Amino acid sequence: MHTTLNKTPQVISSQELLDHWQGHRTLTRRTIEVFPEEAFFSHTIGGMRTFAEMVMELLGIAGPGIKEIATGKSAPLNEHLDHGNKKDRLLELWDEATTEINSYWAQIKEEQFQQNIKIFGQYEGTVRSSIFYFIDNEIHHRGQAYVYLRSLGIEPPAFYER
Amino acid sequence: MHTTLNKTPQVISSQELLDHWQGHRTLTRRTIEVFPEEAFFSHTIGGMRTFAEMVMELLGIAGPGIKEIATGKSAPLNEHLDHGNKKDRLLELWDEATTEINSYWAQIKEEQFQQNIKIFGQYEGTVRSSIFYFIDNEIHHRGQAYVYLRSLGIEPPAFYER
Repeated sequence: MHTTLNKTPQVISSQELLDHWQGHRTLTRRTIEVFPEEAFFSHTIGGMRTFAEMVMELLGIAGPGIKEIATGKSAPLNEHLDHGNKKDRLLELWDEATTEINSYWAQIKEEQFQQNIKIFGQYEGTVRSSIFYFIDNEIHHRGQAYVYLRSLGIEPPAFYER
Repeated sequence: MHTTLNKTPQVISSQELLDHWQGHRTLTRRTIEVFPEEAFFSHTIGGMRTFAEMVMELLGIAGPGIKEIATGKSAPLNEHLDHGNKKDRLLELWDEATTEINSYWAQIKEEQFQQNIKIFGQYEGTVRSSIFYFIDNEIHHRGQAYVYLRSLGIEPPAFYER
């Protein structure tokens, strides 16, 4: 249902990129869900952060990042959220971010993706490279969470199911 | 230097997607390099595969996958390569894949990305979704390798340097 005036179709359209990311975000949500609550906030390997800390980074980036791209209003990156060691609280924030991303994404025009931006007032790139970084960074940390889960004897969700 | 006849520019052009992936592949190569040779072929956590086994999967996918997209000739996925427990051999194959990807990628037309394909005669999707899967799968496994390295007390390369 997505139409453009292009002579050549998009390699990936804006809507497809959103769907791709939200598919990944659904998988990350399932990864959070299968973690035992205590391990989610405490389990680490080799001095790395807990998965809860990584998830706060992802939440600090996703909604606020897309909001900044859509509105042009920059705010510093905030990776610390009040969760009271409750997974449900972070899942709630996860779902709020899902809605926020969809809503602000609709305001991003396809011609914006190649524009320069200094995201969070700090990281220089294009809108496109910033969004790809958000997605890649999530895949990277979720991959790490898979090792945390395996080290706890828990089977992670299937990577190819989104 | 990349020009198209589009009214709307690409969200990401074919050349940009290639550069994005090759940037990731450079980082994965550096991740292989920092592994101690023995740990690369033997270290695991929680019953997972060694990083060497994951790298063979990545090599089985990358060059052959792009070749199949470019030529239309399908071959079954081969994740087993003769390496004689030498990291250098896999790094050599990695560099050959880099050249192979660049060379076959140049034959893929931008309008092909939205076409349907059954990659490796097995996985249904579009050219675009297949290539994104190749990249995402590499980021996922490299993230796992970062945990392997940290568990060995070794600092992985910086994620944002490509």
